[in-house]
Amino acid sequence: MTDQQVVRPAAIGGFPEWLPQVRIVEQHWLDLIRAGFERYGFCSVETPSVESLDALMAKGETSQEVYTLRRLQEDADDRSDARLGLHFDLTVPFARYVAQHFNELVFPFKRYQIQRVWRGERAQEGRFREFTQCDIDVINVDQVPLHFDAELPRIVHDVMTSLDLPAWTLNVNNRKVLQGFYQGLDIDDPLEVIRTVDKIDKIGVSGVGELLSKKVGLSDRQIGACMELAGLRGTDAKVVEDITAIGVRSELLSEGLDELAFVMDSLGDLPRGSVVADLSIARGLDYYTGTVYEGKFTDWPTYGSICSGGRYENLAGSFIRRSLPGIGLSIGLTRIFAKLLAEGLLETGPSSPGDVLVVVPNDEQRGAAAEAAGRLRGRGLNVELYHQPDKVAKQVRYASRKGIPFVWFPPFAPGRPHEVKDLATGEQVVSDVETWRRP
Amino acid sequence: MTDQQVVRPAAIGGFPEWLPQVRIVEQHWLDLIRAGFERYGFCSVETPSVESLDALMAKGETSQEVYTLRRLQEDADDRSDARLGLHFDLTVPFARYVAQHFNELVFPFKRYQIQRVWRGERAQEGRFREFTQCDIDVINVDQVPLHFDAELPRIVHDVMTSLDLPAWTLNVNNRKVLQGFYQGLDIDDPLEVIRTVDKIDKIGVSGVGELLSKKVGLSDRQIGACMELAGLRGTDAKVVEDITAIGVRSELLSEGLDELAFVMDSLGDLPRGSVVADLSIARGLDYYTGTVYEGKFTDWPTYGSICSGGRYENLAGSFIRRSLPGIGLSIGLTRIFAKLLAEGLLETGPSSPGDVLVVVPNDEQRGAAAEAAGRLRGRGLNVELYHQPDKVAKQVRYASRKGIPFVWFPPFAPGRPHEVKDLATGEQVVSDVETWRRP
Repeated sequence: MTDQQVVRPAAIGGFPEWLPQVRIVEQHWLDLIRAGFERYGFCSVETPSVESLDALMAKGETSQEVYTLRRLQEDADDRSDARLGLHFDLTVPFARYVAQHFNELVFPFKRYQIQRVWRGERAQEGRFREFTQCDIDVINVDQVPLHFDAELPRIVHDVMTSLDLPAWTLNVNNRKVLQGFYQGLDIDDPLEVIRTVDKIDKIGVSGVGELLSKKVGLSDRQIGACMELAGLRGTDAKVVEDITAIGVRSELLSEGLDELAFVMDSLGDLPRGSVVADLSIARGLDYYTGTVYEGKFTDWPTYGSICSGGRYENLAGSFIRRSLPGIGLSIGLTRIFAKLLAEGLLETGPSSPGDVLVVVPNDEQRGAAAEAAGRLRGRGLNVELYHQPDKVAKQVRYASRKGIPFVWFPPFAPGRPHEVKDLATGEQVVSDVETWRRP
Repeated sequence: MTDQQVVRPAAIGGFPEWLPQVRIVEQHWLDLIRAGFERYGFCSVETPSVESLDALMAKGETSQEVYTLRRLQEDADDRSDARLGLHFDLTVPFARYVAQHFNELVFPFKRYQIQRVWRGERAQEGRFREFTQCDIDVINVDQVPLHFDAELPRIVHDVMTSLDLPAWTLNVNNRKVLQGFYQGLDIDDPLEVIRTVDKIDKIGVSGVGELLSKKVGLSDRQIGACMELAGLRGTDAKVVEDITAIGVRSELLSEGLDELAFVMDSLGDLPRGSVVADLSIARGLDYYTGTVYEGKFTDWPTYGSICSGGRYENLAGSFIRRSLPGIGLSIGLTRIFAKLLAEGLLETGPSSPGDVLVVVPNDEQRGAAAEAAGRLRGRGLNVELYHQPDKVAKQVRYASRKGIPFVWFPPFAPGRPHEVKDLATGEQVVSDVETWRRP
């Protein structure tokens, strides 16, 4: 041992990491999510972790959360890294990617992207500085078919169902319904109302009412209608009738209601209550222009949204003079995973991917043990060969501590048979490397 | 379209990204590498992209390459991010991880780690600022069995073979052999000689000889022996006899030769020439203390090493007052992948993971098409449902451009059969969603 200074190894707040028995579950989740996305034919894209600050701030909105890069030893004459930042979501990089590779992609371009993102926020429950997002988006020239407004929530429903999560709901709304409704009420600045009503979760109905009156200057009749709309929820397309019954009319509203009805109808075969039309949600970002989505755990309504997204016009317009509308949904993997872990609802896995540990009883049998391990591997099994001759009990204990379910005993002497022990049952039987299967 | 300023979407030098048809191959490689590592029972670990600068610089060596983080809008009173940097390899984070979770891990701790790393270097062929490394390491308390010196190159050989790479060699050496040999020659500063001889690739034999004479002050006899050693290569343990024949003796040399012979003997079943003892390689990093590895493409000897590693004493000693030696090997995925891509040696894949495109002939048959797609997905196939009713020829062309091999036709009218077309052969046959298999 050296007598150098010891740097105490500490966790950095907001940058989660897992033990192997937790990581193996996260990996399994990532596999399921990827398989779910590919099941619908979405291709994988990864972009660099880094974008130019110009690209990151093309929309201007989240600049305060961006981590910029600087080289520790920066030459005064080479400032080439000075305008780089870590991406804070996967939508902006995707828009830049599509604009940059426009001539090499097939449209409508359907991709998924599973990567880490970074935000320089203060860490708190459900908020991390580094976390993994799982996004699917479709982007197309001029027009994205309504088909995708229903397909994306179906994919996310499938994927999240495969993860076996506690009860959750995907809430759906349509910005055209909100904006058209407010237009029908002769409200001058619908976006301001959308932003205000979106605070209903935080400041309640009365708080929103007060803001609409004092800050936006709405009449009592207007506020009453807005509140009636925001109070509506429905598990199928009949919610459209409830909206219509309020008595407000506009062309944009009709268009939005048709879209909302299409989405709810198309998803009618999913379990009742898994997708809910909720007229109170708006999603803060100004670029959403049609369908919007927000997923929440049923039992933790104040916990942040676990998936979210919507339809946007021309997001890539910051990068290319083409009209490229899109629609997307993002699963907040780390937020979901960390919550289940914290609540004790995550069944951790073994700390090894191994199916079998092959014991090395003594130096003479090391060759036979190595050969057995090699043959089992050749048949597709994950096999650890113990690293040295040692007491068998110690080797079995090692397998047990790592959660390796089977222990293989090569012959203790030439001519003797192989045996395999099931650590769950304790049963040990004669076996053969060429035919044994994990039960 | 908005009339806002367009930010020209540009690639940032040293931060590679791939089109979907290339990404799908990279993903396949990552799957193979992961499967190869798990085949030997190594567990997955991921660490944050970020470490404290204290941790990153605990070894002090590569400080000039570190990217530090800064929040774009940094409060003067919150400098909590000011001491964070992106990791430049996976070894330092692994050492920190083991020290931090020491009491929760089973030793010998065997993990693989596949992640991006960042280095603020000038970009050039084979050097990136962001790239993916695939590491396997074993770390243990007090002592790492020699078993792993042979197991790690076997795993990497298996994994790289599964990638079907152009010819490459894993060169092996042992630092004890070098150091013991120089001790046997009564050289005062063996490390200085190791560093000098390591430059043989760059400045040639005569350049090294001159440095050893003028800078290190060796005699002609000493230089001659050093050069004789550095010139030795061998594909099996017989190389040890060649080393012994030079006539230099020391206890450390004998120990190193035993280790080298063990490694070469243990790997004797691999194809001849895939593992070569090469007495000229040393690997620059001072912390290696025993076996060292360096992989090179046969046809591109001046291209950087494609995998490398070795045995180190007490790397985690910067973080914990325990003796925690280790041994590891790292595959430079991005370096290998980018080279093959640049050389035109990478067969790109389809730009979609889809097996089947289901056509939507008209609005009436949209339901039947969606149902067929759902059933095929339920049977494990990756299926795109075309996004709107359209001319069938256009839909088939879409499948063809994306590399989707089969097109499914739901019945054009009730009571008619389903059909499936193989785009490779042009053959179209009656089929059934419940029984069809991808040939």
